This record gives sequence, C-alpha cells and structure tokens, in this order.
Amino acid sequence: MATLVLLRHGESEWNALNLFTGWVDVDLTEKGRAEAVRGGELMKSEGVLPDVLYTSLLRRAITTANLALDAADRHWIPVVRDWRLNERHYGALQGLDKAETKAKYGEEQFMAWRRSYDTPPPPIEKGSEYSQDADPRYASIGGGPLTECLADVVARFVPYFTEVIAPDLAAGKTVLVAAHGNSLRALVKYLDGMSDADVVGLNIPTGIPLVYELDEALKPTVPGGKYLDPDAAAAGAAAVAAQGAK
Amino acid sequence: MATLVLLRHGESEWNALNLFTGWVDVDLTEKGRAEAVRGGELMKSEGVLPDVLYTSLLRRAITTANLALDAADRHWIPVVRDWRLNERHYGALQGLDKAETKAKYGEEQFMAWRRSYDTPPPPIEKGSEYSQDADPRYASIGGGPLTECLADVVARFVPYFTEVIAPDLAAGKTVLVAAHGNSLRALVKYLDGMSDADVVGLNIPTGIPLVYELDEALKPTVPGGKYLDPDAAAAGAAAVAAQGAK
Repeated sequence: MATLVLLRHGESEWNALNLFTGWVDVDLTEKGRAEAVRGGELMKSEGVLPDVLYTSLLRRAITTANLALDAADRHWIPVVRDWRLNERHYGALQGLDKAETKAKYGEEQFMAWRRSYDTPPPPIEKGSEYSQDADPRYASIGGGPLTECLADVVARFVPYFTEVIAPDLAAGKTVLVAAHGNSLRALVKYLDGMSDADVVGLNIPTGIPLVYELDEALKPTVPGGKYLDPDAAAAGAAAVAAQGAK
Repeated sequence: MATLVLLRHGESEWNALNLFTGWVDVDLTEKGRAEAVRGGELMKSEGVLPDVLYTSLLRRAITTANLALDAADRHWIPVVRDWRLNERHYGALQGLDKAETKAKYGEEQFMAWRRSYDTPPPPIEKGSEYSQDADPRYASIGGGPLTECLADVVARFVPYFTEVIAPDLAAGKTVLVAAHGNSLRALVKYLDGMSDADVVGLNIPTGIPLVYELDEALKPTVPGGKYLDPDAAAAGAAAVAAQGAK
C-alpha cells in the first residue's frame, strides 16, 4: 500500500485575470498562497505526510508545494523537479484572455482547444513574448514544445510517472505531486483508466489535496481518490469548469 | 572554474530572541524573510545564477533558499537536502537565553561553548523539550547527535562536501549552499585552509551571498571569497560577533 497525493497549485495571477497561462511562469496571488497553506494544514490534520515531493519547473506549483509542506511540517523532505509535470503548453493562446478568445473563435473552437483530448492550439511563435524557447530551464529539451494537446501531456507525463515516481510508491513512500490542472488530469486519466472521452469532463480544483491509496499493483483502491475537503473540492471543480464563461 | 555560493539564513525567531537554536526548527522572522529576498535579488543583479541548491533539513535555511531563489528567478533548479548541512547541535544549551547563559556560566565558559573548536556543550537530554530524537527527519541517523562542537560539524560536513557537492562543482556548475552560521564556518575553514585557532574568529553574516570562485583543484582563487554586498557583510559579521553581549 502506498499513498499518492495530488495537489493543483493555488490561484495564479493569470488565473485571476482569466488568461491562458500554460508554460508562462506567473506567480501565485495572495489567495493562491492561502490555498496552498490550507492544503498543507489539511495534510497535517489528516495525517497525510509526504515522504518525497515531485514538482513541475513552474513557480506556481513550486511555491504551492513550498507553502503546503511548510504548513504540514514536511518542508525537509526530498524534492524532485521535472518539466514533464508542467502544465500543458497552450501554444499561441498563452497570454490571451479566455473570454475574448471564446468570443473571437466561438464556443466550439474554444472548447476544443481547452478540453478536447487531441486538438492542440496553434503553435506559439519562437521568440515571441510568451514563448519559452530561450528559457535556460528548458535548454536541455530544445526550449520545449510549441503547443500541446492533453494527449501530448499524457505522452510525456505518464512514462515519467511509471518510470520515476512509481518506484517511490512501490517502496511504500507517500508521494506528493504538486502540479497543474492538465498535467494532473493526465495522471488521473492513467490512474483511473479513464477513456479519452471521459477525461474531457474531468476538472481538478486548486489547492485541495487529492489522495489516492494504491494497492500493490499501484492501482487505486478507491476510483477517483478522495479529496481531503470534499465539499470545497466539488465547488472548486465547478468553478474550473465555468472558466471562460465570464 | 566553478562558482560556490554560500548563504546563511536570515534572522530567525530565536536569533531575534537571543536564544541558542542549534537543531530546533524555528522559523524566519519577517526581517529574515526580507534578508533572504534581498540575497536573491543580489544574486540576480550580479549574474550569480545557481544551477543546483543544497540545504540543511532546517526550516530557516530551506525557506531562505526558497525565497532567495524565487527572487533570483532560479526557483526551478534541482534541490538536495541533507542533515550534514545542519547548524551545529547546541546540546543542552538549545532553548537557553544567550545572555543569561553567559551571566550564569561566565564569559570564559560561554565563549568556549560558542566559539572554541573542540568543546561541545553538555549533551541534551533525550525526550526533552528541545531535543530531536523523536523527529522523523532524523530517524535514519538515530535521532542525530546530542551535542556537537565545531570539530564535529567539520567531521560530518566536509566529507559530504568533498563527496557529494564537489562533483557538481567539478562539472562546472554554480552551486548554492543555504545553511547556518556554524556549518558554513566549517566549510569556509576547509576551503580557506584555516587553522583550528583562526576559525574561532570567523563570523559569517546572515542573508548575504558569499561567492567563491574555485580553480580546477576546487581551491578558492580569492581567499575568503567575495560577499555580494561587502559593506553590509562587514556590519553583519560584527553583529554576529557581538551576540550574547546584550
């Protein structure tokens, strides 16, 4: 038996502005920081104590993990960071307003880019304001992708999970994965064996630890796992689903 | 050529209260957080950009590093934590007021415990309020030491430096070590080839990056390294030397 804890970062500056973010490295808002602290307090009060942390290379997930682990008195555990946990790269949509994008391209195209499994947005232009091709953290992967659909995130993150994270779980460790809406959707799809169609309707709320107890084959003992604050999680998932509506 | 950056944590709650801290896991004060951010801003403005971070297992060094790296836009680099970077264990003095201890035991004994190379304080009692023997982070080392002198810190930290950190330097990386007054004194003693007698007079200020450029043999090209803010460093070192006087 092992425990896997998934934590989506708290509200970021661009969440608050309703902009597509992707790999743009924005900071948390004060609300996002408070969400992270509360997530850590929930872990501490429920006795869910991570032995090792995995994060993306993005500030909003890194800071969320730092604040949550500090609140849980687990700030001292080992840390591993990898780009494969990053948010989906949103291509040329990065930096655009979600509501304006919806108005300009229509509901159907907007939802295809946001939620379809295999439709990537148009690629971002190299060297443009919100591209990452000159970012030193991605030098080893040629600057990273220029756009991604959710299938691309599954293709980069699930092998990392099975090859790097799963051995920690098999060793009985409690593993915290601090990441993003779409990288966590990719992982939940794998864990729960969701179809490409079903994952489209999956929304993960910010800042609330989602706990999977895994059996010896690393399969969830309870499909969908368990949020440490189920009521807040349901409200948060509904809010995510409503993004772009305003 | 490699670059080694040493960063002593900013003011902690017990620094502010003038208490012996050692392995007690106190938090930074607001002043300490501001020092950490400024240390990161100095690294960024001077172009001293760490490729990898080493910290102790103590919150005040971990949080200092988190804040400094965030301010330097290097929050995404790999992190390694190890107890060998911890502050010197202050034994039975942990939790005691420095000025009261000096008044009770006299200047000579006080300075022997604080600054002599090989006189450890009396051991802490297991299970007492400020002992660490039940702390899960030290379970793999039997709860850790019950007291330490500076020679003990040299004996645990220098081999870790030469075996684990030095290979990163030999590979040309810029390495940030975020640690504590006495663990950094132990490292500086080794780097600069200081005698047991000379290290007694060495004081390292809080929150100001100390940069060593190292040659191919990992010897400092400039003995003593270079603080990124030399004036503030001199004032800070004098303040450390005066502790216990109030």
